[in-house]
Amino acid sequence: MHYLSFNAYLNENANLPEDTFAPFLDQKKKMEVKKGDFLLRQGEICKYSFFVESGLLKYYSIDERGKVHVLQFAPEGWFVTDRESSFFNHPSSYFIDAVEDSTVMVFDENDICQLSDMQPQFGALNNRLLHRHISQLQSRINLLLSASAEERYQAFIKTYPDLMLRVPQHLVASYLGITPEGLSRVRKELASRNFKK
Amino acid sequence: MHYLSFNAYLNENANLPEDTFAPFLDQKKKMEVKKGDFLLRQGEICKYSFFVESGLLKYYSIDERGKVHVLQFAPEGWFVTDRESSFFNHPSSYFIDAVEDSTVMVFDENDICQLSDMQPQFGALNNRLLHRHISQLQSRINLLLSASAEERYQAFIKTYPDLMLRVPQHLVASYLGITPEGLSRVRKELASRNFKK
Repeated sequence: MHYLSFNAYLNENANLPEDTFAPFLDQKKKMEVKKGDFLLRQGEICKYSFFVESGLLKYYSIDERGKVHVLQFAPEGWFVTDRESSFFNHPSSYFIDAVEDSTVMVFDENDICQLSDMQPQFGALNNRLLHRHISQLQSRINLLLSASAEERYQAFIKTYPDLMLRVPQHLVASYLGITPEGLSRVRKELASRNFKK
Repeated sequence: MHYLSFNAYLNENANLPEDTFAPFLDQKKKMEVKKGDFLLRQGEICKYSFFVESGLLKYYSIDERGKVHVLQFAPEGWFVTDRESSFFNHPSSYFIDAVEDSTVMVFDENDICQLSDMQPQFGALNNRLLHRHISQLQSRINLLLSASAEERYQAFIKTYPDLMLRVPQHLVASYLGITPEGLSRVRKELASRNFKK
């Protein structure tokens, strides 16, 4: 099972020594969530950001017909939260739950302020995450508007290199905005093309 | 023609007296752009944020087949920029051009810092805009994944109440991710339903 501690993440992404936040992180409890557990439900106000150390979460909506639409997967090393709900104090339109048993660090607004005060580089990291988030959402819209099923699938693999083996096909199809049959067609076509090479 | 000065916008949105930034804004030139003029081209690094005082800009990509995909319209009172390109110094994947003759305020990174230093409320406004942007991008993805053509159209009208009369139909269809024929079907259906009421 893959594992990326928050410390190792900070070291890689904000160039901070692993023990920078030791006094803070030592008292912080990690949360163990079981497959299927909810971390956010539609209608609740989202108060937390979740950093996944191991396992896998998904962030999604359910439409009136009961269909699931996946906005984001969060495997090891990813953050997930509803920034709109937490920032504007709006009831969330989304759910977050665990696709696999997961170990998660839970941050509230106070934690983020405290970490930024302790180390300005954390504030800069937070700002970079915000902009990366915008960039990802933007490319996703562009893909949904312009790309074929195959192009979307290729982009998915680039973003989430090992998720195809971990996520049920219907959830991948839901993320891509195509039917499970469409996804299966794309995969067969790519496999046969690679076989012919 | 609609018109919203940057001063009036600040007054409405950041609760700042209209003359707060007078010394700064007095020296700032407004840019007059003609219909069809470009403010950003794919491959360039986006150095500016554009605030539209009057007129209308669009932010879009062009795919390999030459098809336009509209990510955002920016009428009076809207900002538009490629935050990814300007923040990460990446060549932009997008274009910004004028759908109508427009009057635009142009801000670079320095201006934003200067305004935030002059008045912390401006920094807070900027942060709110970032989060609103995320929220809009997120709902747009959700709509593209889950909503029918009619639901997308209704959401469009809510976001841009007067644009249907100002924007060519094929651009609205492009924004909605449906064909122009699909858009025309939706409009006819809605019109006949409203007529029967």
